[in-house]
Amino acid sequence: MPLVRFSISLDQSLLEKFDRKIRNERCPTRSKAVGDFIRKSLVEAEWLEGNEVAGAIVLVYDHHKPDLLRKLTALQHESHELIISTQHVHLDHDNCLEIVAVRGKPHAINAMIKRLKALKGLKHVAMAAGTVGRRLP
Amino acid sequence: MPLVRFSISLDQSLLEKFDRKIRNERCPTRSKAVGDFIRKSLVEAEWLEGNEVAGAIVLVYDHHKPDLLRKLTALQHESHELIISTQHVHLDHDNCLEIVAVRGKPHAINAMIKRLKALKGLKHVAMAAGTVGRRLP
Amino acid sequence: MPLVRFSISLDQSLLEKFDRKIRNERCPTRSKAVGDFIRKSLVEAEWLEGNEVAGAIVLVYDHHKPDLLRKLTALQHESHELIISTQHVHLDHDNCLEIVAVRGKPHAINAMIKRLKALKGLKHVAMAAGTVGRRLP
Amino acid sequence: MPLVRFSISLDQSLLEKFDRKIRNERCPTRSKAVGDFIRKSLVEAEWLEGNEVAGAIVLVYDHHKPDLLRKLTALQHESHELIISTQHVHLDHDNCLEIVAVRGKPHAINAMIKRLKALKGLKHVAMAAGTVGRRLP
Repeated sequence: MPLVRFSISLDQSLLEKFDRKIRNERCPTRSKAVGDFIRKSLVEAEWLEGNEVAGAIVLVYDHHKPDLLRKLTALQHESHELIISTQHVHLDHDNCLEIVAVRGKPHAINAMIKRLKALKGLKHVAMAAGTVGRRLP
Repeated sequence: MPLVRFSISLDQSLLEKFDRKIRNERCPTRSKAVGDFIRKSLVEAEWLEGNEVAGAIVLVYDHHKPDLLRKLTALQHESHELIISTQHVHLDHDNCLEIVAVRGKPHAINAMIKRLKALKGLKHVAMAAGTVGRRLP
Repeated sequence: MPLVRFSISLDQSLLEKFDRKIRNERCPTRSKAVGDFIRKSLVEAEWLEGNEVAGAIVLVYDHHKPDLLRKLTALQHESHELIISTQHVHLDHDNCLEIVAVRGKPHAINAMIKRLKALKGLKHVAMAAGTVGRRLP
Repeated sequence: MPLVRFSISLDQSLLEKFDRKIRNERCPTRSKAVGDFIRKSLVEAEWLEGNEVAGAIVLVYDHHKPDLLRKLTALQHESHELIISTQHVHLDHDNCLEIVAVRGKPHAINAMIKRLKALKGLKHVAMAAGTVGRRLP
């Protein structure tokens, strides 16, 4: 996809602050920083508008909790169209970190998260919202 | 403060999505949209870096709760260097919405919010983070 | 409204951590802490479900920006059914902090915020979500 | 770890709203709901207090971007003490979803995220904050 060049006007002191911020964050160019702002706002819009998205669900649990493993596996299988794959980390003797890569409509992903949260014995459920990238140049 | 004109390069289809977003939100120009992204990130930085900030704390409570009004007033007076003024709304016979305009270092504002949250009878405490504007062109 | 007493079971070490947290935050009782958790989740639900809510919108701007004051006032008048009152703070020679107390349906409040954000010259717009309290014991 | 039973008092109508919310979310018991609130606040505290945490970083990128893959791999190797493992999903012909399981001090994880964000060609970076579970019964 071709690059397009265009110009914008900013208050001089705002531009100076922007440049200082970019340098601090080791962002290589103004164009990259502006592109990142735009992409971030587009991903937020994808989740609000209900388009297909992707992301990761983080689960932490003690695998000794009675019946939890079985229920967790069953629930993931019922949602197999949403789940791409699962990464399992043995944090210590008791604790598991499970990271579920997901892809689908936001409402379906949120419904699955709701069902996960209702499971007894899960210590923590969190979500990192991402994108399928296709609509995000 | 003078305006400065400079150019940036974006992937063409990203620019098209940006323009569509701007039109949807009735944002008048690309320059305004980019400036808004930058200012938002600068206000977030002000709060993280501990510079002087400003904002509003929203409280909701039932003024019949015993001793709450007295404690709330006392606490606000002890923090009088942080509080600019208070706006009080009678939501109905029982409920009050109180909006406290604040200005000061983030850590001091956060400490005051912590003390407010410890008051028995407050139904809700929320914060809108703003800026004193001086460092924000 | 009468108080109701009921009991819950927690893992002993979770309860110890809870008690330590409460002490740190000077929260007077476990009942108050649990009530605060519940109320916070109910206010979030009110905003999602579209019931009547209340809150505060924080605006920061330079009143010298041409035509901004007039547009801001016009826009607030057009939304007068949403706006209860406005608190204006002169931050310095140039900068204003304006805090708008609002009450209404979340979608109407969000539409007004969108229109505010489209105004040229506003430095910052933020929202503190609250509640009208009536459905929140 | 043994369960402990204790009682709390809530306003009757607040308890009714709580029970309705629990039923809606198919949460099996009040004890589970209260435990979840407490655990969530403890995980937030772990991140603020700088204790060891765990989580997942989600990256979306086009693997055709020149030199991106090499830089991404190099950066991950430099942070190998933070990274447990990486899950890679081929979203389509161009787009990759990469999910990096991390474990370490919050400040080190945040520094790595900052370096990731500075890479040209990454479309999206997001984080799901979790816990190592050990301090979270």
